[in-house]
Amino acid sequence: MPAEKITPRAQDFSEWYNDVIAQAELADHSPVRGCMVIRPHGYRIWELMQGALDGMFKATGHKNAYFPLFIPQSFLAKEAEHVEGFAKEVALVTHTRLKATGKAGAEAIMVDPDSKLEEPLVVRPTSETIIYAMFAKWIQSYRDLPVLLNQWCNVVRWEMRTRLFLRTTEFLWQEGHTAHATEQDAEAEARQMLGVYRKFQEEWVAMPVITGAKTASEKFAGALRTYAVEALMQDNKALQAGTSHNLGQNFARAFNVQYQTAAGGLDYVWNTSWGVSTRMIGGLIMLHGDDHGLVCPPMLAPIQVVIVPIWKSDEEKEQVAALATRIRAEVAQAGVRVELDFRDGLKPGAKYFEWEAKGVPLRLEVGPRDVAAGQVMAARRTGGKAPIKLEDLSARVAAALQEIQLLLFHAARERREANSLRGVTKAQFIDFMKGPGGFAYGGFCGSADCEAEIKKETAATIRVLPDAEFRSPEQPKKCMWCGMTSVAEAVWAQAY
Amino acid sequence: MPAEKITPRAQDFSEWYNDVIAQAELADHSPVRGCMVIRPHGYRIWELMQGALDGMFKATGHKNAYFPLFIPQSFLAKEAEHVEGFAKEVALVTHTRLKATGKAGAEAIMVDPDSKLEEPLVVRPTSETIIYAMFAKWIQSYRDLPVLLNQWCNVVRWEMRTRLFLRTTEFLWQEGHTAHATEQDAEAEARQMLGVYRKFQEEWVAMPVITGAKTASEKFAGALRTYAVEALMQDNKALQAGTSHNLGQNFARAFNVQYQTAAGGLDYVWNTSWGVSTRMIGGLIMLHGDDHGLVCPPMLAPIQVVIVPIWKSDEEKEQVAALATRIRAEVAQAGVRVELDFRDGLKPGAKYFEWEAKGVPLRLEVGPRDVAAGQVMAARRTGGKAPIKLEDLSARVAAALQEIQLLLFHAARERREANSLRGVTKAQFIDFMKGPGGFAYGGFCGSADCEAEIKKETAATIRVLPDAEFRSPEQPKKCMWCGMTSVAEAVWAQAY
Repeated sequence: MPAEKITPRAQDFSEWYNDVIAQAELADHSPVRGCMVIRPHGYRIWELMQGALDGMFKATGHKNAYFPLFIPQSFLAKEAEHVEGFAKEVALVTHTRLKATGKAGAEAIMVDPDSKLEEPLVVRPTSETIIYAMFAKWIQSYRDLPVLLNQWCNVVRWEMRTRLFLRTTEFLWQEGHTAHATEQDAEAEARQMLGVYRKFQEEWVAMPVITGAKTASEKFAGALRTYAVEALMQDNKALQAGTSHNLGQNFARAFNVQYQTAAGGLDYVWNTSWGVSTRMIGGLIMLHGDDHGLVCPPMLAPIQVVIVPIWKSDEEKEQVAALATRIRAEVAQAGVRVELDFRDGLKPGAKYFEWEAKGVPLRLEVGPRDVAAGQVMAARRTGGKAPIKLEDLSARVAAALQEIQLLLFHAARERREANSLRGVTKAQFIDFMKGPGGFAYGGFCGSADCEAEIKKETAATIRVLPDAEFRSPEQPKKCMWCGMTSVAEAVWAQAY
Repeated sequence: MPAEKITPRAQDFSEWYNDVIAQAELADHSPVRGCMVIRPHGYRIWELMQGALDGMFKATGHKNAYFPLFIPQSFLAKEAEHVEGFAKEVALVTHTRLKATGKAGAEAIMVDPDSKLEEPLVVRPTSETIIYAMFAKWIQSYRDLPVLLNQWCNVVRWEMRTRLFLRTTEFLWQEGHTAHATEQDAEAEARQMLGVYRKFQEEWVAMPVITGAKTASEKFAGALRTYAVEALMQDNKALQAGTSHNLGQNFARAFNVQYQTAAGGLDYVWNTSWGVSTRMIGGLIMLHGDDHGLVCPPMLAPIQVVIVPIWKSDEEKEQVAALATRIRAEVAQAGVRVELDFRDGLKPGAKYFEWEAKGVPLRLEVGPRDVAAGQVMAARRTGGKAPIKLEDLSARVAAALQEIQLLLFHAARERREANSLRGVTKAQFIDFMKGPGGFAYGGFCGSADCEAEIKKETAATIRVLPDAEFRSPEQPKKCMWCGMTSVAEAVWAQAY
């Protein structure tokens, strides 16, 4: 059962987050530690995300494929940084049979020790190793390049502290994997896909993001360079919403992915990989939600418009039903995801409450007075209520949805900027991270030690070394922490 | 690299199957025993299958959700038949960390014995247990029913002998799971989804199927009744292409899924589950393929039309390019999946060979004479070549694709009927199964012993007790094997 009440954000943001997910029926905890169940309302958001991203991947020349869930343990060991990064959080398959114990109940079966595998299998935490082992088989010549693949799948990382959508033992994602003839091609691909993520997040999730490079201590295990898109949530914590890696020739060397060059020589390919996950749903919730529940950007709303009829007498019911049905057909015809809530025995107010919690962007109320006046009352999830004349209803609904989408994006961007502090000094930084938090921009000396000290003292990490467009007008000369010469402006925040 | 030649079907059907998959680049073996890699051309077929089926599921009121990959070992034990059915073929996760050994190379890491799980986790072979555990949490009252869910996911069954698509350790599928208030509702749902599978296979895969019930010995582990769709491949072996189960109250009792009835009492729900998998791609290959490679039904063809330009001089190339590009745009505009193969340094014949192996239903050849005559030459993958005038090209292409689709279905149905033997006697049956093989229809006494003996002596199993529409005009009176009274007509075949 959904919670009776949603904890206000100001009281406990974390509780609020859990309450919204429960009320909107987006996901649930499963009996398996750290694994979530994505319920239909949440999964529909994921399907809409998938549809949009998949179209963008295909438009940039990528094709989908599918690689095995299991990776031989020895594969992980082939790239030194990679195994270091994942060794402590993998699910390991060691046996393949259960056998009866003769006992009753839950103890009726046990792992059959005779079914032990010669080599344990790792449930993929990411698929670089298994995919590049296949690339080695498929790629012979420069004519085979580039290889541009993507897969939609589940991955498993044995996380200790989990939160629905944000950090779960199993999650759903896509991972793109490409091979190129030159470093430039790989770099261009990694940047291109970062751009695709940014476009998707801005236009679909209504999520303003900062793009940039990760520092060495925050980059992907095995990558040459990692780029990321970072967003600021309402509690002023950052969310990494997608990463794109230039893997260099690290994996190509480990898996011997060589190709004959046009000149007749032999060279290693250059790889990239890039991914976004169901984590983005957590971001969507924390970015737009309010104390009434989920606020879903129209482009990703499972239900964009809900029609709630209002009646007292049977005669009114008949009139209202006729109009509501007509409106539903008209709006659906225009390609809008619409639902007519004709449930009996539930008052309109209770319905409003429920659809608000579920984040439906636009509610159309149809009562007897509306029938008479040739209008419906349109209430926006983001606030505001006004009649819409029935003429040209579809166009007005479409326009309202578009407005709500833009409004959410601009509100989030304003909030982000209001919670960004540029050119910070060490003292300001400490206060900022103790206090309201947000994105702190400042000079960075490039030292991992400095980075570690900052993290230890303030729990803030460098989210990105921002791309030109996001840098401050005046570039810092000194590291805001240690005072040494700054090598790049950095953006810090406490992060999910 | 693809094989140089495809083994003819008549010589070795099994080798032919492997060669077609390699030549068409549909799938590949992975370094993990029994796990396949689905390559882009094969995965696109799966995406098209998913799209069609998903639409049909949603049109019948189902919603997608996602449940965990892992199932606690004890859950499997809760339904006695279910654990019996799956215990010997499960991947078991027992540990969650790797640690360094200090050795070099492949032995550099080992399973960390300190990371042993208290309770092993089963990688889902199917999800009844974990899903119904959640249903118990979500379902309170008759108002919550029916629950109509589906999930698209990967499952793992530790198979000993594997074949690409047909039987792999990991495969992709969808599994529908529903809960109903009454037995009738569950039965109607199980039958409805069997009908959806039949419709999909006939209309999309161009695969004629027989529908019917499984016998007790062939039913799903834990089901009350299992229904299946069965098709006959070109080597006269049967392929089970989908199953739909009325699970009765078996799992509801095991997981305590109870609801308050309208009358105020308490009752267990009735469940159904139903699934189809990437196995269907194997069926598509074996049903339609020929000695030149894959033959893909147009509705599921990743590329429906390929345009191959033919030129000698640069002047010809220019003319041909202009027309080919115009045609591509025109055909694509009409919603056809079309590719223009303008690769240099590859002769038209080599291109034909390649696209034939990949199963493209229609090839349009564009040469200088065609430019002059205002036509293109259209070669069908199923045979026949004729010019098409450029006027109304799109409509003619669409009509040709539709004809090929129907032709494939009718050819497969005729072949099936030509390889079906009705009213068999025991002697005929033995000869039939030793000889050509196919669907044998005969009386069945209902005894599992009789069924087991037939299987042992002829390797044939009862595929279904066919639905009325597929039964022979004259119903058999006696069991074709033991001569006892027949309880139902059965269809036997050797099967994949």
